[in-house]
Amino acid sequence: MEQLKAKIRREGRVLPGNILLVDQFLNQQVDTELLLDMAEFWYERFKDKKITKVMTIEASGIAIAVFVASRFGVPLLFAKKYSSTNVTRESHEVNIYSYTKQVSYNVAISKRLLTSDDTVLIIDDFLANGQALKGLLDLCRSAGASVAGVGIAIEKAFQNGREAVKDFNVDISSLAIVEALDAETGEIRFSGDEVKGEERA
Amino acid sequence: MEQLKAKIRREGRVLPGNILLVDQFLNQQVDTELLLDMAEFWYERFKDKKITKVMTIEASGIAIAVFVASRFGVPLLFAKKYSSTNVTRESHEVNIYSYTKQVSYNVAISKRLLTSDDTVLIIDDFLANGQALKGLLDLCRSAGASVAGVGIAIEKAFQNGREAVKDFNVDISSLAIVEALDAETGEIRFSGDEVKGEERA
Repeated sequence: MEQLKAKIRREGRVLPGNILLVDQFLNQQVDTELLLDMAEFWYERFKDKKITKVMTIEASGIAIAVFVASRFGVPLLFAKKYSSTNVTRESHEVNIYSYTKQVSYNVAISKRLLTSDDTVLIIDDFLANGQALKGLLDLCRSAGASVAGVGIAIEKAFQNGREAVKDFNVDISSLAIVEALDAETGEIRFSGDEVKGEERA
Repeated sequence: MEQLKAKIRREGRVLPGNILLVDQFLNQQVDTELLLDMAEFWYERFKDKKITKVMTIEASGIAIAVFVASRFGVPLLFAKKYSSTNVTRESHEVNIYSYTKQVSYNVAISKRLLTSDDTVLIIDDFLANGQALKGLLDLCRSAGASVAGVGIAIEKAFQNGREAVKDFNVDISSLAIVEALDAETGEIRFSGDEVKGEERA
């Protein structure tokens, strides 16, 4: 999606450790015009799927996902994080390990709110190593809900998130697929970008 | 605001410990139609204030605040929570004590994103003891930003949040002010509700 890629090129910052900082427009400060365009893109992509709920995980996915939910005219559902286990008979719960923060945490969603009647579109800001997405897919599986697809704003292809969730066999629609980041030069290479031959000679 | 009060009466649940559970439509599952109405209400209330940013704190304020930001045509800004201190020269940071969870946490916002050029509308889902709001007001004060007002979905008046932030002298617009909760009967009494005389006789 060209609007998002252009925004990343203009305002994203590459930091050491393969970090792409997008806090200027996506996950601390949020550009609502961009979010509306993103929601429209996914609406066109998934509008025939009879989506009943849009689902994400707190916190930075919420702003994006709520616009998508509004576009589909369905509720947003967000899984909540807990540092300790919080299992009750009322919740589905999974454990997620974050490679970025090197901690594991539990994520829960009420059994009242996600059921086998639901057809879910999962939305998140990043797909990196895929652990958060795997957790959301596990929650849907526990609930018996169908997953119609996954919308990701920025996929870091070099961190193999797709591989981590391949057993779920879901349709993943990423708006910007990043193939490589270079903290020294600040370069961001997207999937499909031309690699300049003369610079390699 | 009648739509919100009606929704709370219909779908809210009162739990022991003065807890009002609104996870069916506000802070786990989110009713986007309701959010649009809430945003419209605050837009009418604050539209002359030259708002430059809408601000909230992660996580459950985000869904509400991003619709408000969109209605005003300005960016959303959300303060991030950290369990440990994360002070850098790049962030404003404050410590917040949560009476509900009995833990303290740090909240930070980038100095690049909140400055003395900003006129902020703060939005949050709940006002209870006022510590989260006080933290957001402190962040704005650190940044030298003006606060044009505060929009709260549900104020629990009996927990004295207004008192906790009275030194800031801000205009607080709460959509539903709860005066009392009764976990045994499930009763929710809003500010302005008639107290039935015959039941007291």
